[in-house]
Amino acid sequence: MNDLYQKDFLLTWEKSDQALKTILELALLLKKLRDQNISPKVFDTGLAISIFRDKSTRTRYSFASAANLLGLTVQDLDEQKSQIAHGETVRETANMISFLTDIIGIRDDMFLGEGNKYMREVGEALDEGFREGILPTRPGIVNLQCDMDHPTQSLADLLHLQQHFGSLEALKGKKIVMSWAYSPSYGKPLSVPQGVIALMSRFGMNIELAYPEGYELIPEIVEIARANAEKSSGSFSVSHSMEEVVKDADIVYPKSWAPYEVMKKRTELLKARDTKGLDDLEKEALKQNAQHTDWEFNDRLLKLTKNGNALYMHCLPADISGVSCEEGEVSAGVFERYRLQTYREAGYKPYVIAAMMLANRFEKPMEVIEKIVDRNPYRRL
Amino acid sequence: MNDLYQKDFLLTWEKSDQALKTILELALLLKKLRDQNISPKVFDTGLAISIFRDKSTRTRYSFASAANLLGLTVQDLDEQKSQIAHGETVRETANMISFLTDIIGIRDDMFLGEGNKYMREVGEALDEGFREGILPTRPGIVNLQCDMDHPTQSLADLLHLQQHFGSLEALKGKKIVMSWAYSPSYGKPLSVPQGVIALMSRFGMNIELAYPEGYELIPEIVEIARANAEKSSGSFSVSHSMEEVVKDADIVYPKSWAPYEVMKKRTELLKARDTKGLDDLEKEALKQNAQHTDWEFNDRLLKLTKNGNALYMHCLPADISGVSCEEGEVSAGVFERYRLQTYREAGYKPYVIAAMMLANRFEKPMEVIEKIVDRNPYRRL
Amino acid sequence: MNDLYQKDFLLTWEKSDQALKTILELALLLKKLRDQNISPKVFDTGLAISIFRDKSTRTRYSFASAANLLGLTVQDLDEQKSQIAHGETVRETANMISFLTDIIGIRDDMFLGEGNKYMREVGEALDEGFREGILPTRPGIVNLQCDMDHPTQSLADLLHLQQHFGSLEALKGKKIVMSWAYSPSYGKPLSVPQGVIALMSRFGMNIELAYPEGYELIPEIVEIARANAEKSSGSFSVSHSMEEVVKDADIVYPKSWAPYEVMKKRTELLKARDTKGLDDLEKEALKQNAQHTDWEFNDRLLKLTKNGNALYMHCLPADISGVSCEEGEVSAGVFERYRLQTYREAGYKPYVIAAMMLANRFEKPMEVIEKIVDRNPYRRL
Repeated sequence: MNDLYQKDFLLTWEKSDQALKTILELALLLKKLRDQNISPKVFDTGLAISIFRDKSTRTRYSFASAANLLGLTVQDLDEQKSQIAHGETVRETANMISFLTDIIGIRDDMFLGEGNKYMREVGEALDEGFREGILPTRPGIVNLQCDMDHPTQSLADLLHLQQHFGSLEALKGKKIVMSWAYSPSYGKPLSVPQGVIALMSRFGMNIELAYPEGYELIPEIVEIARANAEKSSGSFSVSHSMEEVVKDADIVYPKSWAPYEVMKKRTELLKARDTKGLDDLEKEALKQNAQHTDWEFNDRLLKLTKNGNALYMHCLPADISGVSCEEGEVSAGVFERYRLQTYREAGYKPYVIAAMMLANRFEKPMEVIEKIVDRNPYRRL
Repeated sequence: MNDLYQKDFLLTWEKSDQALKTILELALLLKKLRDQNISPKVFDTGLAISIFRDKSTRTRYSFASAANLLGLTVQDLDEQKSQIAHGETVRETANMISFLTDIIGIRDDMFLGEGNKYMREVGEALDEGFREGILPTRPGIVNLQCDMDHPTQSLADLLHLQQHFGSLEALKGKKIVMSWAYSPSYGKPLSVPQGVIALMSRFGMNIELAYPEGYELIPEIVEIARANAEKSSGSFSVSHSMEEVVKDADIVYPKSWAPYEVMKKRTELLKARDTKGLDDLEKEALKQNAQHTDWEFNDRLLKLTKNGNALYMHCLPADISGVSCEEGEVSAGVFERYRLQTYREAGYKPYVIAAMMLANRFEKPMEVIEKIVDRNPYRRL
Repeated sequence: MNDLYQKDFLLTWEKSDQALKTILELALLLKKLRDQNISPKVFDTGLAISIFRDKSTRTRYSFASAANLLGLTVQDLDEQKSQIAHGETVRETANMISFLTDIIGIRDDMFLGEGNKYMREVGEALDEGFREGILPTRPGIVNLQCDMDHPTQSLADLLHLQQHFGSLEALKGKKIVMSWAYSPSYGKPLSVPQGVIALMSRFGMNIELAYPEGYELIPEIVEIARANAEKSSGSFSVSHSMEEVVKDADIVYPKSWAPYEVMKKRTELLKARDTKGLDDLEKEALKQNAQHTDWEFNDRLLKLTKNGNALYMHCLPADISGVSCEEGEVSAGVFERYRLQTYREAGYKPYVIAAMMLANRFEKPMEVIEKIVDRNPYRRL
């Protein structure tokens, strides 16, 4: 079963292991081709629409790079502000931007219970438009971050791990700590930690999720991670101390997020347009955060990890103590030591997105890669 | 006489019947080619500049799609706000954005007596720049909506009618109602109804223009429609009751617009930067609107049309009662029944724009289409 | 020595005469190819990132045109506001936008001592990224205007002079006046006059720099111009009267700028976020300006130049008395007489930028041009 071709990429846990491996493989091949000056352009013309309902620099760039690599032109649909729109507006807009479109990338990560739902609404509208002969093709949707998952990030992370440790096989039994970390900011999405635990748990890793009490993730997704771990003969556990959990860790991913309960309340207040309530919530949440400034990943903690040199990961930008803020997620020393590694990690994202696009549009993407190699056109003269 | 090649497309009533038919034909051919995965890319590189002096999502997308289809790259010239600029600024800017440009698309529909005039000013500056050897070619201008006409919309509408009824011939004797409809908003341009009556009247249709007293269109354009109807053996009349006029109609186009007199006053106030005057005018105009909430196209009126199923048309987005507003242009039931039809109608616009671009740049566009078919390159691998 | 290939283009005075001549030659060849409908597209795909830290219409267009001509797609990195960011943010962003990027164009001209420095910081980050295997190639940086130089402008100006007078040889002994001129605005960058005197002084011209006392340029750059002039057997002198200096001039470039001391103070106040201080400085500077409304280039002064018809130059847009402002840099009559010449001058900029891109990416750009001519693909069908 091909669950990539003409299927939206919305959540990693909806995709088979084979599908995920195909994405990794395609991403690596595309990177290799480009590095060797072979152009994997498969579209002569065509549009890739991006819908960003939250600010973004690097995901915007990654999406643009991926589209360009394959020959698609990006057209941004800029909705003035993050908003919760449904119904006819979504249905109509989805069709209006799709008459000559191959791919739609969507980022909608601000509202719990809304982002992924919005993507599915867009998808249903596209299904109808295609079925009714209004659209010549059904554009594929790529989730560029929602309230539940951030699949282009987590798969770039996985590719980084695969390359770092040599293979997916080598990840079996590795201990990875996905830990909350202190940040002086408020309202960071939950999709990165959720995406990481739900994905890494499928490859036999020992997942340690750590956060101060009160900083829960969406319970259903934690359950998915737990079930995945069991199935893949890995393990999954939750802890409330970064210090304890990093012991002997192979990988540490310290990253701030907002508590599930706060995000839920925030979504309700936003729907009710309760400005006063939102201000109060923000103050309260920052106060709650401030009790956990000791959740910083630093040299002292790094020393406790396996051989004192676990792989540090981050989706960037990190809140670096003394650099981007007074107290943050990671000490300046630790970050500097792994800085280039985090750049490398980020560098896989454009190729992961391109792989998703390719696999959505072509039934046999590996054969497409072969054709590309055979025709052998230079990317640059 | 070829009145398309190297001629701006500003008003349908400046173009011959043959020219309009060429646009329709090219648009259909381009659509067919793309649907069959044949790429009509005729430019290796080149720019299409878009100047939007009013917000736009769908026209922006349509323009971008058309440019991309032919191989041009869109560069937006974003003027911060809608403004009435003339003279040296226009002349200079027109040249500065044209050194490597093939097409300039302009939307300037806010100010009566200004939008079309602005396009002509740009055109004159381009004429001079080309004549004086400053520009290697004279970029063609496509009117993406002005104060007088909205030719890409009305031609997409006409193409929709042609496809729906089978041919342009089949439109002869058909009764089309272009009717004002209630909307709780203010200052909607007159260009859609003006464009529709001035275009459809050329194909032997019976045009019924309906609006509450006081909601006149630009008189000169109404006269053009009247003269067109006479020449094409159709008819043209004005009524002040939607209810009466929809009887036995084949097509109904209910759409709100601001009264001509209000738009004239508004333009004067804007020129005088009279903020207080503008606020007063808006209040007054909304009050005037509110007297006509009964101008809604609904099931009761639909039943009165030919066989109770006239074709409902709209340029989108429509103000749908109970959906996008409390009371609007059309009832939810009627809109839902014709919703997909309105999407289909909109889907012709990118191809109409591409046809205008092609016919402006190539003297014999049909021969270009033949070449495209002969070389037969796939749009996607 | 090839000081263009894989070298950033930041300041003309860092480049050899040979390098500058190569840029001029390539720019002309690229223009000629395009004018003859031969496409110099050398990239099948690839990105050109633009970073604008100041508003821009024409440089943005020029950059987009150049990128498109060579086959690169522009991706804008819009930083909300002009800002002084350094350190980790710059280092990280530079890499994040470069995974699939060939060229980065930067405009950062607001803060004295900052713009060029920022470009070098970006460059160092790219060096590291490439050295460490994070980036597949080291993107080239093109200075689209900084606090010190505006090389794409001054080289377009030089190309205009070369074409106007027939050759670079013909410029020897020509008298060019780079003169301050009155403008009712505040804070105009110094990079245009600095760029012009530092570049033109290398070709044996007699440079006359004129400004009211107190409107000094960066002293180090004035010294560079003086040294250049001596080396090229031209001359360099400073005057404080536009009237005296235009006598027998072959070329006059009247253009407003802010005094060096004001710009220095402004940068300090901006760093200190001293809003009150900035307001006071603006008032003071405008008052200072207002004492020099007589620094207008007009018919009376034009008559004093060589044969009464020196070539008038401007980077556009000019402040034209009675047109774009009450009193400005140039009288309406003089500007109108040379208006088309200034358009022509501006028309070289896209090709100068394209030449810089080409020379940065290809070791032997002239051989690339030969290949382009040999393959002979049409830009348009």
